[in-house]
Amino acid sequence: MTRIARRSFLVASGGFVVWTRRSAYAQSDPLPSWNNGAARKSITDFVKRVTTRGADFVPPDQRIATFDNDGTLWIEQPMYVQQAFVFERVKALAPLNPGWATTQPFQGVLQGDMQAVAASGEKGLMELVAATHAGMTIEEFEKIVSDWLKAARDPKYKRPYTELVYKPMLELLAYLRANGFKTFIVSGGGIEFMRPWAEKTYGIPPEQVVGSSIKTRFDVRDGKPVLFRLPEINFVDDKAGKPVGINEHIGRRPIAAFGNSDGDLEMLQWTTAGGGVRFGAIVHHTDAEREYAYDRQSHVGKLDKALDAAKDNRWTVIDMKKDWKRVFAFQ
Amino acid sequence: MTRIARRSFLVASGGFVVWTRRSAYAQSDPLPSWNNGAARKSITDFVKRVTTRGADFVPPDQRIATFDNDGTLWIEQPMYVQQAFVFERVKALAPLNPGWATTQPFQGVLQGDMQAVAASGEKGLMELVAATHAGMTIEEFEKIVSDWLKAARDPKYKRPYTELVYKPMLELLAYLRANGFKTFIVSGGGIEFMRPWAEKTYGIPPEQVVGSSIKTRFDVRDGKPVLFRLPEINFVDDKAGKPVGINEHIGRRPIAAFGNSDGDLEMLQWTTAGGGVRFGAIVHHTDAEREYAYDRQSHVGKLDKALDAAKDNRWTVIDMKKDWKRVFAFQ
Repeated sequence: MTRIARRSFLVASGGFVVWTRRSAYAQSDPLPSWNNGAARKSITDFVKRVTTRGADFVPPDQRIATFDNDGTLWIEQPMYVQQAFVFERVKALAPLNPGWATTQPFQGVLQGDMQAVAASGEKGLMELVAATHAGMTIEEFEKIVSDWLKAARDPKYKRPYTELVYKPMLELLAYLRANGFKTFIVSGGGIEFMRPWAEKTYGIPPEQVVGSSIKTRFDVRDGKPVLFRLPEINFVDDKAGKPVGINEHIGRRPIAAFGNSDGDLEMLQWTTAGGGVRFGAIVHHTDAEREYAYDRQSHVGKLDKALDAAKDNRWTVIDMKKDWKRVFAFQ
Repeated sequence: MTRIARRSFLVASGGFVVWTRRSAYAQSDPLPSWNNGAARKSITDFVKRVTTRGADFVPPDQRIATFDNDGTLWIEQPMYVQQAFVFERVKALAPLNPGWATTQPFQGVLQGDMQAVAASGEKGLMELVAATHAGMTIEEFEKIVSDWLKAARDPKYKRPYTELVYKPMLELLAYLRANGFKTFIVSGGGIEFMRPWAEKTYGIPPEQVVGSSIKTRFDVRDGKPVLFRLPEINFVDDKAGKPVGINEHIGRRPIAAFGNSDGDLEMLQWTTAGGGVRFGAIVHHTDAEREYAYDRQSHVGKLDKALDAAKDNRWTVIDMKKDWKRVFAFQ
């Protein structure tokens, strides 16, 4: 139920002036892209319990909900969006770096030889990160990300990635906020890769984005203070790193957490092990037609242990095909 | 001006029913502990400029204000409160650690030999941190801090440290929030040392506290997920670390920053170098009678370079003796 307005009515009847107040509620559905099923009901039941005065009531300041990003809020197939960014940036920067044509892992990226890229291991990955994410100020990187997102198109839908966000999850974010929740992203993806567009796309401000990061250094250059991005990992916000990142950034345990892969297992464990009513949910990609179907065997967004844990812990499993009326706003 | 209420008036006159609305404003002072002087005026002028539609207007989501803690929001003499915590915890734990009586830096702490403690250097400091801040879960540490703060008394005023917060700064925090600002602590002190009491004392929730930290590790113990505090520095949120911490946690540049020592210099530089109207201020401890007077020569809260920079950059210098009607609520 969405509250529309509180109206004051002046009723003049039979010579008397009567002053009345009435709260007008609309029966409009805050989750129109969700089918009526167990997943939807578990969400609305949880919200009702923690927002209704009584044994399960949670004060608004403690209504923290955390969301994984890749595969939970937006698409992650056929590869993570940030990986597409890295590959396309390498291609864009190649003319300035002629040596890359014959040096791994750059050569592999340029020739589309994923085996060679994979073979370069963690060292190769760091070289790719350094070449595409570091060696610039934070403002310069923000502009590169924003410009790239405007131009880049997903290979399947031929649309900007920021349109490939799940409509039911956008509704869920808004629904939770309307019920006094503070919504956070807690992603294995780069924090500075998400912040430039998370507020406009999800309504989540930069200070409520938690993610992986490289180190930055404060410097004064030509009398002007800058934060410079260094080719060095600062924090990996994935798996057991997620509860650590949550504690560092938020400093309280969420009462609800949403993920879609084994990378979210520890976040869900940490969230749902707290006292009182807690909510854990997993988005299960079951819809090969409207999006993708993948879980235990997938290279991207592998969902294996967390799917077993969902059963053991009674976390809600959101079946994309069954539970969502539509996946994307444009469908 | 504090807005009190919006009232609806029903005016029946001459047989006509007239419906009117009026906004009622109170002329009450939001900064009653501030004298009318240049410092107060610079603050209210700045707030008026950024909240009034026009060239200098800043949308509410970008109204970020950061505050140092020690010496800016609460007392830091004769030693940082967290240092008092470390020393008193070592004394409390000494019976369980008989070896400390003959091992530095613990021996120095137990005998009040500050020279011996200082001589133990960074290695000694880390041993003290490890003994008092690590080796427990985050909940256990939170309880230790809360319990200690309830019992501990400052040596000069014989009061709990949470009463030794500056009344004019509490008013300033509330005034900024009433004008749409989001207020953050950005302190060299420990993030987990501040969070247990910052919300109650300052109205600043845990997710808006930025500070120094040690590493934590996620573990499942007896089937229960825990975050365990490790004897290893994670981040030092001081000097050039402050802009880095601000970027990591907040992800936008503040438009106002308040500090009191050289440890805040880079935060003030970073904040005031942004585009548009910016505000930087330094609390200058000039009041030996009501609190303490110290600056360039002080071991705690040294204010030397930042005092020169304040002049060069036209940051506001808040003269505690001249600008504040009272320092603490109990005075």
